[in-house]
Amino acid sequence: MSSIVLTVDGMKCGGCSGRLKRVLEESDGIHAAEAVLETRRVTVDFDERRVDPQAIRQRIEDSGFSVVG
Amino acid sequence: MSSIVLTVDGMKCGGCSGRLKRVLEESDGIHAAEAVLETRRVTVDFDERRVDPQAIRQRIEDSGFSVVG
Repeated sequence: MSSIVLTVDGMKCGGCSGRLKRVLEESDGIHAAEAVLETRRVTVDFDERRVDPQAIRQRIEDSGFSVVG
Repeated sequence: MSSIVLTVDGMKCGGCSGRLKRVLEESDGIHAAEAVLETRRVTVDFDERRVDPQAIRQRIEDSGFSVVG
């Protein structure tokens, strides 16, 4: 298991951050995700045999958020 | 050009509705979209030769929202 921490723009309320967490956790290869509105930090625990960081970034962008760091 | 009006659960703030609109308008075959937070109504103008209503519903669900009507 690996983890990455990303900075994500676009979360404006608890609905936004909760939805991003849920979308990530429903994605293949992702074990758990946390999305914190106030800090813009998104932490993702993933199985590196099944998904890579680039695919995780793409999943976030496809949901309408911007990965800025 | 065709239009559909859907009822979508999960929009909690203007960030949510704005993001859903943007995600839809970036999707292939969709000409324009409006997402109204207060009424939960999402109106989508689309090219029926390039996309069908089922694919539009799926795109909304993939973004973490629920199509309820």
